[in-house]
Amino acid sequence: MIEDIRKRVLDQVKPTPADAKRLMATAMEIIGRIDAEATRQGFDIHAIHVGSTARDTWLRGKRDIDIFLPFPPDTSREQLELAGLKLARIVSDDYEERYAEHPYISAIYNGYEIDLVPCYDVPDPSRIQSAVDRSPFHNRYVQSRINGMCDEVRLMKQFTHGTGVYGSELRTMGFSGYLCELLIIRYGSFIDVIRQGAGFHKGVIIDIEGHMNREVEHLEPLIVIDPVDPKRNVAAALSEQKLYEFVDACRQFEERPAIEAFFPPETEGFDEPQLLQALDNRGTLLVAITFKAPDIVEDTLYPQLRKAEESIVRMMEQHEFRVFGSGVWSDGKRSAIVLEMLIWSLPQIERHLGPPLEQREHATRFKEKYPAAYVYGYRYAVDLPRKYADAASLIQDRLISCALGKQVSESIRQDFIVLTGSGILNIGEGIGAFLKSLLG
Amino acid sequence: MIEDIRKRVLDQVKPTPADAKRLMATAMEIIGRIDAEATRQGFDIHAIHVGSTARDTWLRGKRDIDIFLPFPPDTSREQLELAGLKLARIVSDDYEERYAEHPYISAIYNGYEIDLVPCYDVPDPSRIQSAVDRSPFHNRYVQSRINGMCDEVRLMKQFTHGTGVYGSELRTMGFSGYLCELLIIRYGSFIDVIRQGAGFHKGVIIDIEGHMNREVEHLEPLIVIDPVDPKRNVAAALSEQKLYEFVDACRQFEERPAIEAFFPPETEGFDEPQLLQALDNRGTLLVAITFKAPDIVEDTLYPQLRKAEESIVRMMEQHEFRVFGSGVWSDGKRSAIVLEMLIWSLPQIERHLGPPLEQREHATRFKEKYPAAYVYGYRYAVDLPRKYADAASLIQDRLISCALGKQVSESIRQDFIVLTGSGILNIGEGIGAFLKSLLG
Repeated sequence: MIEDIRKRVLDQVKPTPADAKRLMATAMEIIGRIDAEATRQGFDIHAIHVGSTARDTWLRGKRDIDIFLPFPPDTSREQLELAGLKLARIVSDDYEERYAEHPYISAIYNGYEIDLVPCYDVPDPSRIQSAVDRSPFHNRYVQSRINGMCDEVRLMKQFTHGTGVYGSELRTMGFSGYLCELLIIRYGSFIDVIRQGAGFHKGVIIDIEGHMNREVEHLEPLIVIDPVDPKRNVAAALSEQKLYEFVDACRQFEERPAIEAFFPPETEGFDEPQLLQALDNRGTLLVAITFKAPDIVEDTLYPQLRKAEESIVRMMEQHEFRVFGSGVWSDGKRSAIVLEMLIWSLPQIERHLGPPLEQREHATRFKEKYPAAYVYGYRYAVDLPRKYADAASLIQDRLISCALGKQVSESIRQDFIVLTGSGILNIGEGIGAFLKSLLG
Repeated sequence: MIEDIRKRVLDQVKPTPADAKRLMATAMEIIGRIDAEATRQGFDIHAIHVGSTARDTWLRGKRDIDIFLPFPPDTSREQLELAGLKLARIVSDDYEERYAEHPYISAIYNGYEIDLVPCYDVPDPSRIQSAVDRSPFHNRYVQSRINGMCDEVRLMKQFTHGTGVYGSELRTMGFSGYLCELLIIRYGSFIDVIRQGAGFHKGVIIDIEGHMNREVEHLEPLIVIDPVDPKRNVAAALSEQKLYEFVDACRQFEERPAIEAFFPPETEGFDEPQLLQALDNRGTLLVAITFKAPDIVEDTLYPQLRKAEESIVRMMEQHEFRVFGSGVWSDGKRSAIVLEMLIWSLPQIERHLGPPLEQREHATRFKEKYPAAYVYGYRYAVDLPRKYADAASLIQDRLISCALGKQVSESIRQDFIVLTGSGILNIGEGIGAFLKSLLG
């Protein structure tokens, strides 16, 4: 059973020998050209191929090759960037400069997307000068340990894909490829990771090299000590939600192994009648706050969207509305914060609590201000007309006073639209699938 | 100004000399007859006149006279009751037996209601055998200290009447007559009680004799040590609400002395159009649970009604409804628990939280039971149809499972009716006034 599933999955995700050969040849060719050009320009550097394509843990269909250009540690930042880009550009005319922590070149060559990243060639990972300097160490570590387990990594990666927990970006907050590799190195096989994963819980520590730094406090749900850096948690980006979704998936797979865990059936998003039906069954109100997506990378956008979501939910609850669930969405053009409201409309009256009578001065001032104040236990209270009797008017009036994150706030200040019910389906493509997953 | 108000109040509440003379003559006559009859029957007892009519602190219109029959402490309980009742009955043929802690006679004579209460003639209050044995000591204490301040007590009593805080029974939980007398004894005059009262707060201790027992912990809002019993708090029945209503009234009177504090304008209860108007303005829903009033004294009934009120409110909140205010009502025939609902209807869907995934066995059982369970943070959850989507159906179904108090529960088990909105006005007379005060 399991054997059969393994085979069927690998049949689909393992690169063909031809694929692999072609990719490796391309990488070697680029490295050769860069090294030659470096020598020509008088640099003593040797480009290296890193990432999953270098360690044979990539999934079929992957078209990115990561090439790092390690400069001596005493190279100035400016020099590194300048020289790095100069070398990188020779790969192809079809390229663009991009920025992560520092600039790199993304070039199209031979049908592959080649990322050419200048970095520092530090002697050990404790002396990295930029986050990318760590990658060559990760590469070396995995290459030295992964022998014979590459297919296990592929199964693991496809499993996290299929169960929706793959991706360490701040959009997903799930499992990175490197984390998948480390789990296989630690437990030896895909099925052993599943067995162990079924028992994972908050606070589990995986320290393959047994070298964790006890002075560093890790508060993240799962702690996987980086074999090349005792202070670093490789699973730092993993959210509690994704950890337990993984645990749930492992248990399910353990109990009933099924190929669907790797390749879930594609589901269609809600169309209008389906959404209306779902809302009618649930009796809730769907409210979306939508605005132009700020022009920032997802790793900056999603934390801001979640911050906005959180403050809007808090504002709702402070005004006695109730939010059943919420989520954030963006397609690069429009962004949205979507709330499923349990209570979105309230009676006109509101009890406004005043000071304790024991604080006589405050109490007297309150009663002067509100002659209708009455004694309510040990304090004054007064019944006032509620300022916001429905959730939409609260949003319209007070949204921009919420903590929203810089660029999200700027975009919302320019313009936002509040939509309810099936009107939300018009925000952009893919919103129907998002709403389907939000409503369960 | 104050002088004028004092005068006008006393003009109305001080018994006329003729009233006083007639009442005292009646009391003396009864005592004479009882003492004679006692001698005839071979008892060595002397009846005593106690209460406000005995200490000249009564308000005009009062028609009750309290006569106590103190028996030697070694009299058996049966003897005391038997002999007491035998003596008491000679006052009038028009009498009935009543029960407080033990039986007493309430007789109509000369247009007065005479309460004839057998008690034990104990040497000091620390040796009382029944709560009523304390009354003769209270009587003696007040009589020895109240000289020249009787009108101050009358002002005080009328003030607590007018401001709605008079009455130490469990229905009102306010100020007793004896408490009013002690406050006057402590502060010397009505206006001084007002001044001090304006500064009262939870935990204030008034210990006229400076003899409080520090080993007895008093948790009540106001502590007035009984001058005849260092362990007893005379204000034990006073609720926090009534304490602060009194404080509020004192402050208001201090700032703007007005005769209305003693004689508030009579207000009419809500009629149907007024109630509908008020509910329309507030946007809330009024719900009444009504049932046959149990045949028990108010001091037993009201605590049970409040207990029922509290558990019904708690049940509402547990099911995610929200109660804005509530109250209890009884006219002796019907009783009612009335709720003003802020949220009385909820969407069909409800999130049912399951165990943390960390508790694997529980978690697995939950998921088997609810295949639609999903990961919600560190635990499972499942969306289920809400069992009670409106408050009325919750009451209908679950009322009898609430903690209601013995006789209230018995009555509700026999039958109860749930009314909403203006239908509640039909429960009984006086309900309109109650609803008016409930809705502020």
